Amino acid sequence: MAPIQKKVHINVDLGEGYGNFKAGPDDELIPLIDHANIACGFHAGDPLIMQETVLKCKQHNILIGAHPGLPDIQGFGRREIKMSSEELTAITRYQIGALQAFLSAFDLSLNHVKPHGILYGMMYRDREICRAVYAGVPPGTRVFGLAGTFHEEVAKEMGLPFTAELYGDVKYSADGRLVIDRKKKPWTAEEVHKHVSSQVENSSVTAVTGEEVELPIGQHDVSLCCHSDSPGALEIVQAAREIVDAFNNKMNYL
Amino acid sequence: MAPIQKKVHINVDLGEGYGNFKAGPDDELIPLIDHANIACGFHAGDPLIMQETVLKCKQHNILIGAHPGLPDIQGFGRREIKMSSEELTAITRYQIGALQAFLSAFDLSLNHVKPHGILYGMMYRDREICRAVYAGVPPGTRVFGLAGTFHEEVAKEMGLPFTAELYGDVKYSADGRLVIDRKKKPWTAEEVHKHVSSQVENSSVTAVTGEEVELPIGQHDVSLCCHSDSPGALEIVQAAREIVDAFNNKMNYL
Amino acid sequence: MAPIQKKVHINVDLGEGYGNFKAGPDDELIPLIDHANIACGFHAGDPLIMQETVLKCKQHNILIGAHPGLPDIQGFGRREIKMSSEELTAITRYQIGALQAFLSAFDLSLNHVKPHGILYGMMYRDREICRAVYAGVPPGTRVFGLAGTFHEEVAKEMGLPFTAELYGDVKYSADGRLVIDRKKKPWTAEEVHKHVSSQVENSSVTAVTGEEVELPIGQHDVSLCCHSDSPGALEIVQAAREIVDAFNNKMNYL
Amino acid sequence: MAPIQKKVHINVDLGEGYGNFKAGPDDELIPLIDHANIACGFHAGDPLIMQETVLKCKQHNILIGAHPGLPDIQGFGRREIKMSSEELTAITRYQIGALQAFLSAFDLSLNHVKPHGILYGMMYRDREICRAVYAGVPPGTRVFGLAGTFHEEVAKEMGLPFTAELYGDVKYSADGRLVIDRKKKPWTAEEVHKHVSSQVENSSVTAVTGEEVELPIGQHDVSLCCHSDSPGALEIVQAAREIVDAFNNKMNYL
Repeated sequence: MAPIQKKVHINVDLGEGYGNFKAGPDDELIPLIDHANIACGFHAGDPLIMQETVLKCKQHNILIGAHPGLPDIQGFGRREIKMSSEELTAITRYQIGALQAFLSAFDLSLNHVKPHGILYGMMYRDREICRAVYAGVPPGTRVFGLAGTFHEEVAKEMGLPFTAELYGDVKYSADGRLVIDRKKKPWTAEEVHKHVSSQVENSSVTAVTGEEVELPIGQHDVSLCCHSDSPGALEIVQAAREIVDAFNNKMNYL
Repeated sequence: MAPIQKKVHINVDLGEGYGNFKAGPDDELIPLIDHANIACGFHAGDPLIMQETVLKCKQHNILIGAHPGLPDIQGFGRREIKMSSEELTAITRYQIGALQAFLSAFDLSLNHVKPHGILYGMMYRDREICRAVYAGVPPGTRVFGLAGTFHEEVAKEMGLPFTAELYGDVKYSADGRLVIDRKKKPWTAEEVHKHVSSQVENSSVTAVTGEEVELPIGQHDVSLCCHSDSPGALEIVQAAREIVDAFNNKMNYL
Repeated sequence: MAPIQKKVHINVDLGEGYGNFKAGPDDELIPLIDHANIACGFHAGDPLIMQETVLKCKQHNILIGAHPGLPDIQGFGRREIKMSSEELTAITRYQIGALQAFLSAFDLSLNHVKPHGILYGMMYRDREICRAVYAGVPPGTRVFGLAGTFHEEVAKEMGLPFTAELYGDVKYSADGRLVIDRKKKPWTAEEVHKHVSSQVENSSVTAVTGEEVELPIGQHDVSLCCHSDSPGALEIVQAAREIVDAFNNKMNYL
Repeated sequence: MAPIQKKVHINVDLGEGYGNFKAGPDDELIPLIDHANIACGFHAGDPLIMQETVLKCKQHNILIGAHPGLPDIQGFGRREIKMSSEELTAITRYQIGALQAFLSAFDLSLNHVKPHGILYGMMYRDREICRAVYAGVPPGTRVFGLAGTFHEEVAKEMGLPFTAELYGDVKYSADGRLVIDRKKKPWTAEEVHKHVSSQVENSSVTAVTGEEVELPIGQHDVSLCCHSDSPGALEIVQAAREIVDAFNNKMNYL
């Protein structure tokens, strides 16, 4: 199994607080990452948090993506809601547009779109849901997703540039999909190290059921996702940064 | 007291339903108006309704404005909420951006911004609130407001083109401000006729307390606002359309 | 196929507006019905509407039930949301308790509980969901549901008195379940007449696919449900009232 | 200035998370306090959190009160919203009823009602608002409030037993009212010690503007409030517990 063929970046979901409620240690994470996925107010985030998060990312030259989710702050976008295709397209447009207003206000532009939580999972399991969400993405905008699933297939079909994601703090099932819990469990440093190294060095990961799963990354651009609301998020991202930097250096990826 | 000096247009708030809840007779109103103020999801409207409303307006070549409100669907944006200036700017940006996503998707552009309900009133009574909201309006975008108030003064200060509004179905107080109820009361045809005719013919209106109030419209562009959720909205707008058309014809306003 | 064996009552969902948004013609419906299912603020209703609706029902001596729904005003409780059993129990308790506060304030007591919309459907299709919701119902409280489904089976298991529902304005599938649309379509008077008469006279109904379906009502108490948000709700309930009264008289049900 | 005349208790607002969002260290605080004010879902809390919080309080024999707030999770009930008296009564009833459902389910009863955040402040500044909220409190139920304000005066007028509150982590203005920030600032141990000791030993406190303010506690029952969302909440409550226990012992208050 081959190492990843392109420079590996790191993306983190940011701005996932709500009003007075805090989510992750955004200020500490921002200097460590390449891509921010900013919550757009449906599963987390509010206009003030979005504005502040965009400004912080600008200060650190982080590329900004929209992170649209299902309309469910109480469930943090992790409870499946059955919505029509038209609704999915419309909520995607709405959230991306809302973020773009903050980007425009600060002379920034949208780098990518990465759907959040259960919506991300619904998309890789259901082609129609994936199409409905991507129909709300501005034409030609890059999407982040899971290689070898409808994420990749529908992006190609709809002409959207695709970045393949690796996952630093989410486990995989034997079919290469993610195992998402509504409440996250902590990772040890060793677990993170093994999990990330295996993915970047071998394009492969050990599934929760023990099998070794090959990740069909191919020649795609690659970004490793870590979550700001994971227990020990900062330590996870620091560990991932070290592994990724060492890997990129070793491979001479610029 | 002089007649209005420019062609009088008609604007109506549209898309003010929510989910299955309907607000006004939008389909019947759209062919009768010039400018639509589309609710952006905070006081009413949701992504699907916004999308459908933008499409309907496009079909009738109606110019589209954003209609941002306070975050309060239960109160329909008519309950005063004390928010910081930063929050007011951020909620304005967010809502306008959300609408712009639908405009972009259908190759349309934003014509104007008109704040909704109590927010509109808070702005003409408080310069700082007005500045905070206008700070969230994209530079150079036209705003609709009440001439002779902070609406006009702050628009000038911030370089935003200004359209003076007349009101077809809202009464005025003796100081030229509006008397807004959370629940609307019905108007008779005669009341509407007298109310609208007086404003366009004389730039003047009878206040709820009986005084004749001169409206400082001057050389501004003018749009007469009617509300889609007023009882008898369709009859009000039809009456207003006839009066306004007759006036524009008589004055040779093109 | 036998006629219904007990007096047939009529229940309607009431108080399903939200803030300024109106739902059905509650004032006109109340004098025509026996049981009100009052929305509890999650799929519709708000504290003020609940209070007003309870008072109106009291004036007409209507028996009041709680009408808990999924937390989704935008979707009117008609979009499936996947929730844990604990959450389902907790949202049921919360909503019933909220209604009981208004009942207590006006010296009334809770007659029954009838879950709303898609939650009602999820319960008759899934035993665990049914158990989770019923676990939030105060012990010994009557529940309204569909005979021959988990509604009935789990009520028996948990010691909750059960009232079998007929449906005046909802169609049935061939397995005796309901065909629920997020947006309702209109019924003709003849359709209502045939639909209701068949159910009360023969415990039977024609499914959407044409089969005649026997309803396993047995010796249960019976209440026929009509919806206040159906197009033509008032005409439907008036028609149902006439049919039901004539049937009860003919059968000498007191 | 005299010491407090009755045993001093400690109350804390609990269950102020929302979905996945955590607020204070409830588990650590519960063993340290006498009275819990449980958020009821409007400014914070959700049905699942309420249920879990009630169960934890039961395990530690903490007396439970309802903590109703304005309907504003994003603003954490700290943004003033103008609502009618009828609405204020209705939202109070609704929230208390919702909590009572969880109390009933676990064989507990309601000890008191303490309004939250800006609503608490609006009540002591405006007699009509205070009356409207208290009108939603079940007859004869104890209310917690600020002595010498409308809290006390209206409670007496409406026959509601009154407990006077002291504040462990909120500063006072020179007129004996509270200085409430939407976002809290940290306290040092010394500040807490001086602030609490002065209140229990002398019924007096130093205002933010430097004056010494006498607190008109008289013969009222007394509970000292600390906030679970204050920075360093656990240390504040531990310090308060020690001071209060030492005071109660010294005074032989049982």
